[in-house]
Amino acid sequence: MTDTLDRTRLGGPVNPSASLLRPLGPSEVRIAGGFWGEKQELNAGSIIGHCLTWMERIGWVGNFDRAADGTVAEHHDGIEFVDSEVYKLLEAMAWELGRTPDGPLETVYRELVERVAAAQEPDGYLHTSFGRPGQPPRYSDLEWGHELYCFGHLFQAAVARYRTGHDDTLVAVARRLADHVYTEFGPEGRDAICGHPEIETALVELGRALREPRYIELAGLFVERRGRRTLKTTLFQGSEYFLDDVPVRRADVLRGHAVRAMYLSAGAVDVATESGDAELLDALRRQWDNTVAHRTYVTGGIGSHHQNEEFGSDFELPADRAYAETCAAIGSVMFSWRLLLQTGDARYADLIERTLLNAVLVSPREDGRAFYYANTLHQRVAGSEPDEDEVSERAESSMRAPWFEVSCCPTNVARTLASVSSYVATATDDGVQLHLLADAEVETTVETGAVRLAVRTGGYPYAGSIEIDAESEGEVEVRVRIPGWAAGAVARFRGEELPVVDGYARARAHFVSGDRIHLDLPMEPRLTYPDARIDALRGTVAVERGPLVLCAESTDLPSGVDVSRIALDAGVPLGYLPDGATVAIAIAEPRDASWPYGDAESDETVTTATARLIPYHRWANRGPSTMRVFLPVTAAH
Amino acid sequence: MTDTLDRTRLGGPVNPSASLLRPLGPSEVRIAGGFWGEKQELNAGSIIGHCLTWMERIGWVGNFDRAADGTVAEHHDGIEFVDSEVYKLLEAMAWELGRTPDGPLETVYRELVERVAAAQEPDGYLHTSFGRPGQPPRYSDLEWGHELYCFGHLFQAAVARYRTGHDDTLVAVARRLADHVYTEFGPEGRDAICGHPEIETALVELGRALREPRYIELAGLFVERRGRRTLKTTLFQGSEYFLDDVPVRRADVLRGHAVRAMYLSAGAVDVATESGDAELLDALRRQWDNTVAHRTYVTGGIGSHHQNEEFGSDFELPADRAYAETCAAIGSVMFSWRLLLQTGDARYADLIERTLLNAVLVSPREDGRAFYYANTLHQRVAGSEPDEDEVSERAESSMRAPWFEVSCCPTNVARTLASVSSYVATATDDGVQLHLLADAEVETTVETGAVRLAVRTGGYPYAGSIEIDAESEGEVEVRVRIPGWAAGAVARFRGEELPVVDGYARARAHFVSGDRIHLDLPMEPRLTYPDARIDALRGTVAVERGPLVLCAESTDLPSGVDVSRIALDAGVPLGYLPDGATVAIAIAEPRDASWPYGDAESDETVTTATARLIPYHRWANRGPSTMRVFLPVTAAH
Repeated sequence: MTDTLDRTRLGGPVNPSASLLRPLGPSEVRIAGGFWGEKQELNAGSIIGHCLTWMERIGWVGNFDRAADGTVAEHHDGIEFVDSEVYKLLEAMAWELGRTPDGPLETVYRELVERVAAAQEPDGYLHTSFGRPGQPPRYSDLEWGHELYCFGHLFQAAVARYRTGHDDTLVAVARRLADHVYTEFGPEGRDAICGHPEIETALVELGRALREPRYIELAGLFVERRGRRTLKTTLFQGSEYFLDDVPVRRADVLRGHAVRAMYLSAGAVDVATESGDAELLDALRRQWDNTVAHRTYVTGGIGSHHQNEEFGSDFELPADRAYAETCAAIGSVMFSWRLLLQTGDARYADLIERTLLNAVLVSPREDGRAFYYANTLHQRVAGSEPDEDEVSERAESSMRAPWFEVSCCPTNVARTLASVSSYVATATDDGVQLHLLADAEVETTVETGAVRLAVRTGGYPYAGSIEIDAESEGEVEVRVRIPGWAAGAVARFRGEELPVVDGYARARAHFVSGDRIHLDLPMEPRLTYPDARIDALRGTVAVERGPLVLCAESTDLPSGVDVSRIALDAGVPLGYLPDGATVAIAIAEPRDASWPYGDAESDETVTTATARLIPYHRWANRGPSTMRVFLPVTAAH
Repeated sequence: MTDTLDRTRLGGPVNPSASLLRPLGPSEVRIAGGFWGEKQELNAGSIIGHCLTWMERIGWVGNFDRAADGTVAEHHDGIEFVDSEVYKLLEAMAWELGRTPDGPLETVYRELVERVAAAQEPDGYLHTSFGRPGQPPRYSDLEWGHELYCFGHLFQAAVARYRTGHDDTLVAVARRLADHVYTEFGPEGRDAICGHPEIETALVELGRALREPRYIELAGLFVERRGRRTLKTTLFQGSEYFLDDVPVRRADVLRGHAVRAMYLSAGAVDVATESGDAELLDALRRQWDNTVAHRTYVTGGIGSHHQNEEFGSDFELPADRAYAETCAAIGSVMFSWRLLLQTGDARYADLIERTLLNAVLVSPREDGRAFYYANTLHQRVAGSEPDEDEVSERAESSMRAPWFEVSCCPTNVARTLASVSSYVATATDDGVQLHLLADAEVETTVETGAVRLAVRTGGYPYAGSIEIDAESEGEVEVRVRIPGWAAGAVARFRGEELPVVDGYARARAHFVSGDRIHLDLPMEPRLTYPDARIDALRGTVAVERGPLVLCAESTDLPSGVDVSRIALDAGVPLGYLPDGATVAIAIAEPRDASWPYGDAESDETVTTATARLIPYHRWANRGPSTMRVFLPVTAAH
């Protein structure tokens, strides 16, 4: 690592003081068109504005105005953590402004920040639901009040602004608020934690950005205080729900509320990194391993209980009751990314790509104006078109909804898409590593000098022929991730096949103009079988194609056939489609019995057909439908 | 039907003004030892006392004392519907006193009634959580306050007392309370309903017992008012949860909160019966048919979502997430029994027996001092021994608990066991029908005179050789139910095989001393396959034996083997055990992979063994264990 780099101003959402891989900031890597470019355009052109419009309309932004003018105790809109939605949107805007500065968004951003800042109290405290006459006192409901959780999102928004080159209002607001929190909860303050982790990772990052070790120290305290069962439990939410059942460093697997688990884990990696706490880091790697091996859907989604939005037991992964909350998937990306930076292990990058493409991107509708909160892998009953003007509940059994009463997911999608370039590449002293295969331009400096990469995917994740033009000052190593699913992938450079070590094809050279790495990935659809211990998936198979999980949507089946009637004939080769696959299916005749248990396996009349499978993340964009990812296999196989 | 019978004083918990089958009261039918006799002894000797002790200890009975002395607004124990637990216990005691009068229980009962009665207000209102200064006003929270729900349970307790020969304090209390409710909610009162149905069926029965048509009229209003979306919904509980989404007479299937659905349906049958409303009755039969065919576990249990304790979609019946609440099963018995009385259809009796033996009896521990609230069909992780002195949450993932914060199930089990003789037999003008096969003595009067039956089961539901001694004045028809599972059953009388018509073996005779009907039921264990559309059960099979669903409990497997590792070899004949079965199993070696999805079906190393299966309702009586009802079938089959 060169000493000349100022790591405090570089990096995206995460920039450890020390790590095996150095993350690249928006000035070093940018998405250049292609699949992810389209998603970033969707975010800039639709999602961000949609979120702002909704939050203005239903008063969540107005809460700050009313906090400033003293009327919020009489009239507060939304639940007690809606402040955080405004902060996540500010974070999304900041990253977007880093990508495309100086447009009209800058004005919108500044005005919104001013309204937030006006609500800050003289001692730094800033929350629209607590502390005023007529409101609950500050910190009177740490289990459910989400005060520190909201602060965390404000800190992350401030980091985004700072890391995109501005040390302005929101950064100052964050500094005052963090100082206040340090006083209240630091070594001399309350020995307490927030019911919903988030502030831990946010405090570390704010501390890294602003070079303020007290913030990092406080994050460490929050991590260490957890797991002592100090949070008051309820009839339905026990200590496990809050991850307060076992200290982080002693747990073996993630459990409880999936979003809480992921945010906490991300913060704990940050704390372990800054304190050089190898035991804590090992515990988190162990938890990641066990969670991925036993408690993760094929999409990368997590959380198999709707009740409490929780993890289930090992191998309890029902497709039809997959909760797989969008925010939990985003939290998983946060956690995996931090471990990738520490270890360089390709498995973390594999899960990040899988999760982004399948478990996160399924959330926004194609027009960016409706979202899934929970993401089932099996829709049994066709939903109904949402009312575009209505705030929805969680839309668990219907189509995407424009907004939710608890609307954590849309703004989380917005900030993730705005900063998705962060996950493309990292650097070391002697080279650059490409993790997320995306059309992108990378330009950074390593020990020998500048390195420039231009990645053109030619349509990835649909197509698999990728070109990387490289130039460097001096000899460097360029590593290109070969995804775990891509058996038979070949990377070539200067006529030679590149060696693949630990999941990365490696080219070491003094790259000169015209140097190009070619990567060929196998894009034929393939069958994916679940572990025999996933009871809910016994006798089924999924189809994947490249990094995309495919699904059968009733829209693509013969008229009147829903997905409960089809089975896949695994004896017929899968067919290739540019964006999916075709499969041979058997369609069972509708029939009924008065009791669904009998003395023989049911004998069905079937017809056969060919069905198209589409990428899972694109389902439910063509009207109400049924859908399933895992298809029963016909009895013959 | 003879005109001389006073139907108001006969009958058990249900006694319609008119029905195809006339229910028999405690003076006409009694359990005489055997399986159900043991359960009634367990109830009398353990469960009832356990419930009373707990409710004294944690203040739920004391609430009534504090209501009487004016201090309950300052100190109320438990949630707002704990009054109902005291009433359900009073109902249990009343039925038990009908069975075994004049013991010390009579004194305990009377004292408890006096404490309840002392809390009644001058205008008849009686609830410990509402209406006093410092409490929410009466009827200010109809969605969640459960006031009318509690009243319903008081009415049912009063009916039990009245039908067992007493017109004393609780009956008077009920009358005053029902008059109050009629004033408040009748034709001149509020156009409103309770969030939790229960008062409907209770008002009809109180009206039947006390010959008060206003109560029946009010029940009809409550049924008709439902389904108009007048109950205020929440973020998580919509109109469907409350069964307030569609009018009862227009719905096709049960949905929403399973207990609410069953209690409402029972009350709606009662209303349809009293008003001769064939359309409403048809709607309820249709809902029963669809619910049984598509939304019922093999145990008879219902409710496949922990979230909201709700029904899932059709065929969404995960074994591991079966909620199958004990109270929902009891509600199902209530609903089916009412339809059986109206129609005489053996399918209702089949489901009653299945549900009682499997979905209800699984709740109490063998010693009657701990209970399941939810009843999974697949326990993945061994629980822990409960603290015998601690109030539990719902004990969803552990062993039975002694008491719950919401403790609806133990007292519901108590009242059901105390009145289980009600389900044994009915009468018509010309004969008697045996529905629930139990050791019992039946003595009633039909048009030709007295009929006496003595049923000895010889160990049913474990053994299948049943004898029924019969005597009658004049010619009558005795019908004996041949369970739906009992293919090949044979009933003989006077050397002849009896004809079986519509599920009942029928013997018409002038029965004289020495006349005996022999019934032989096939008690070999048998394989039961789930409908192919129950995705969660694909590739599995259950084993049933007689009316009992069996299960594999890890206690009966080789040391260290839990149920996730076993599969049943359906090619090996099942073995007979006096109380269960043996099966050939394959045991997979423990193994692990870092990602539980792969490009081939997993290839496991297995050993083979023979395993014992026990009745499902008896599991978890031998320490922490894992358990499953549906076993994967080995790949060879």
